Amino acid sequence: MIAPLRVGIAGLGTVGAEVVRLIEQQGKILSARCGRGIKVVAVTARSKTKKRGVDLRGIRWAKDPMAIAVDPEVDCFVELMGGVGDPALSAIEAALASGKSVVTANKALIARHGLKLAALAEQHGGALNYEAAVAGAIPVVKTLREGLAGTGVDRVYGILNGTCNYILSRMEQEGLSFADCLKDAQRLGYAEANPSFDVDGHDTAQKLAILASLAFGTKVAQSAVYVEGITSIAAADLRAAAELGYRVKLLGVAVRTATGIEQRVHPTMVPRTSSIAQVMGVTNAVTIDGAGISPITLVGPGAGGAATASAVLADIADVARGVRALPFGRPVAKLAATTKAPMERHEGGYYIRLMARDLAGTAARIATRLAEQKISIESIVQRHPDGMIDAVDATKKSSPVPVILITYATSEDAMRRALQAVQSDKVISGRPQVIRIEKN
Amino acid sequence: MIAPLRVGIAGLGTVGAEVVRLIEQQGKILSARCGRGIKVVAVTARSKTKKRGVDLRGIRWAKDPMAIAVDPEVDCFVELMGGVGDPALSAIEAALASGKSVVTANKALIARHGLKLAALAEQHGGALNYEAAVAGAIPVVKTLREGLAGTGVDRVYGILNGTCNYILSRMEQEGLSFADCLKDAQRLGYAEANPSFDVDGHDTAQKLAILASLAFGTKVAQSAVYVEGITSIAAADLRAAAELGYRVKLLGVAVRTATGIEQRVHPTMVPRTSSIAQVMGVTNAVTIDGAGISPITLVGPGAGGAATASAVLADIADVARGVRALPFGRPVAKLAATTKAPMERHEGGYYIRLMARDLAGTAARIATRLAEQKISIESIVQRHPDGMIDAVDATKKSSPVPVILITYATSEDAMRRALQAVQSDKVISGRPQVIRIEKN
Repeated sequence: MIAPLRVGIAGLGTVGAEVVRLIEQQGKILSARCGRGIKVVAVTARSKTKKRGVDLRGIRWAKDPMAIAVDPEVDCFVELMGGVGDPALSAIEAALASGKSVVTANKALIARHGLKLAALAEQHGGALNYEAAVAGAIPVVKTLREGLAGTGVDRVYGILNGTCNYILSRMEQEGLSFADCLKDAQRLGYAEANPSFDVDGHDTAQKLAILASLAFGTKVAQSAVYVEGITSIAAADLRAAAELGYRVKLLGVAVRTATGIEQRVHPTMVPRTSSIAQVMGVTNAVTIDGAGISPITLVGPGAGGAATASAVLADIADVARGVRALPFGRPVAKLAATTKAPMERHEGGYYIRLMARDLAGTAARIATRLAEQKISIESIVQRHPDGMIDAVDATKKSSPVPVILITYATSEDAMRRALQAVQSDKVISGRPQVIRIEKN
Repeated sequence: MIAPLRVGIAGLGTVGAEVVRLIEQQGKILSARCGRGIKVVAVTARSKTKKRGVDLRGIRWAKDPMAIAVDPEVDCFVELMGGVGDPALSAIEAALASGKSVVTANKALIARHGLKLAALAEQHGGALNYEAAVAGAIPVVKTLREGLAGTGVDRVYGILNGTCNYILSRMEQEGLSFADCLKDAQRLGYAEANPSFDVDGHDTAQKLAILASLAFGTKVAQSAVYVEGITSIAAADLRAAAELGYRVKLLGVAVRTATGIEQRVHPTMVPRTSSIAQVMGVTNAVTIDGAGISPITLVGPGAGGAATASAVLADIADVARGVRALPFGRPVAKLAATTKAPMERHEGGYYIRLMARDLAGTAARIATRLAEQKISIESIVQRHPDGMIDAVDATKKSSPVPVILITYATSEDAMRRALQAVQSDKVISGRPQVIRIEKN
């Protein structure tokens, strides 16, 4: 029997404490599965005295993360502190430089410094595992890195932020406003006091950048992701989506196009019957489209102590079993450059909701303006104040009435030019609401 | 750079030919991902001259599978012939005994001889990979074997047979009979001329036996699986399920109970809002419940040349990268004995549909008989001939009327005794239909 894997953990929040507990509790199964034991030999955290409900006797308390990272008695450095810079970054660099394997749940760090860290891991022979950084307990990093090794991926997209999905689910189910649902999410602990990182799409963008790199062999780069959040989504959009056979989700989408890999985060209309549309509440999901195969969808808890700890433990077990997958699935030197795909060239269908001042005149105007840009309309409907929708009756006149359009695939550029023209025509009040459609 | 992995393939049907094609087409990506090339050096199949749409020039044609299995110039033996016995079995044994790694899509063989083969693989240091044997392109073997290494799994269940799911989906959506849907499935090539292996649940049982072993560390044993097929399911059951908030799926379920691991295959009522209930048509899905974490569900194509080839290729890539996971996740010597859990001790809720001869008398009788067995009724409804359901009105009298019961959790034993008593009372005509309920 090989000697046990000696693990050092920096960060003992909910996840860190749960990892310590699981390694103790699952010790026998883990050693049967890995062919060797796993032993936590050192830990550190900001407070040594805090109650954590886990037995730390017999485990050395290190003075700081760096002390664990360079400790010759530690084989695997587990970083669960978070933060995009130091102390996490320096400690991980030091651990990798000394030939240790590193396990982290830190998406921000991997999205920002992943390439540099992957190069260090390759150079010194350690693993750099970060399953917990994307979609919690869902084994999507492993699936893209190893499980689909030979499949040409064409598209990967997912619900990667539980806060946004919780808010959109409640808005739809209860007809509430974004602001009300956000307040509830904050009260329940699903959203931060400053919710911008979640609701403006940045959390999703970091995770998407990592998935895109794994799927397409490009350099991980958060700056290459187009980002739009969910703050402008109204209950009216969710109602209209439902009636038109769609649901609105904040998706991260990375897709191979004729002009390169397009990475984007935005509210998205998905067909109501798709697997991804069924995912409600704080749950996460990722769909992978491969060449010639039907999509694979992975659904599960995207956050929470137990789910994250489960993914961290799987990563540690891989280190113990001697698995050394390349951090981004390919050597860093072979990862392709990443460029930000210009959204004006994005091609797809659009949902457009606007307030018509004069319904007859507006319908005719919109039709003309869209035709000028060669955009075909799949459906055009108006919403009566009572909430029912009907085909537009051009003879009706009333105060501003919502008109909802679904277009066939067109370019974003053409769509924007058409809407600009409609606005110049002064037949609508306010700005049009635009939501991209993603077909499955 | 390490020398390329030399692959020999026995069996060149749709899957085998696709594997040859993918290795050629994806060569560059595969070698970047694996750190070495992958090269098909030998193939064999029943006919050498058959047109397969794939270029076999430069690849040696072996006289039989055994010739590849013992060829010192082959590192990895890929078995895609199928069949539970020879030539597949002897060839795989010979390949493993010579220290080669083996990749196979043969579920019947793994379910029957998996233990013996795993022991050989362990002894001689080769891999035994069989991702394609269960749920096609869905990486469920990898997820259970590696991705959830440290999570205590409590239950794994899934839709593992596309034929049955296709039939049940169409029966529900179009109100058709089992026989009509089966005929259609046969016409479309989703069902065999002799459909028994699929519709009687045996295919699902083989796959479940494999999943149960991976999830719970028990010896793989198809004989430990209780099996019931879908032939008795009527359109009326699917209609009633829909109205009661359920859907009927043929599930394979392996679950840890107080008395051991219960493995069972049977038509199952699942809550309509669960991830598994959304899976329609030939698609497969597996849900894994872990200790303290919300369920993970993996959805994707369960069959078809491209999907199966994708899983086979991932297995080959793992061999190339030097990954050697234990075939059942733990050493064979540590796998626990498997016993067939007696279904009479199964605990759960039940859907019961019976034809009441005299509604008032029958309702009272059923209530009494269930109460005698301490079974609580969640709902009891009758179906009018027009298809609507209503609360039972005990004052009505008519010709036999369907009565549908949903019970709270009870033991199968108690439920069977109660129904036996109801039948002895002669208040119903025909046999009651019973479908187990699986809560998510």
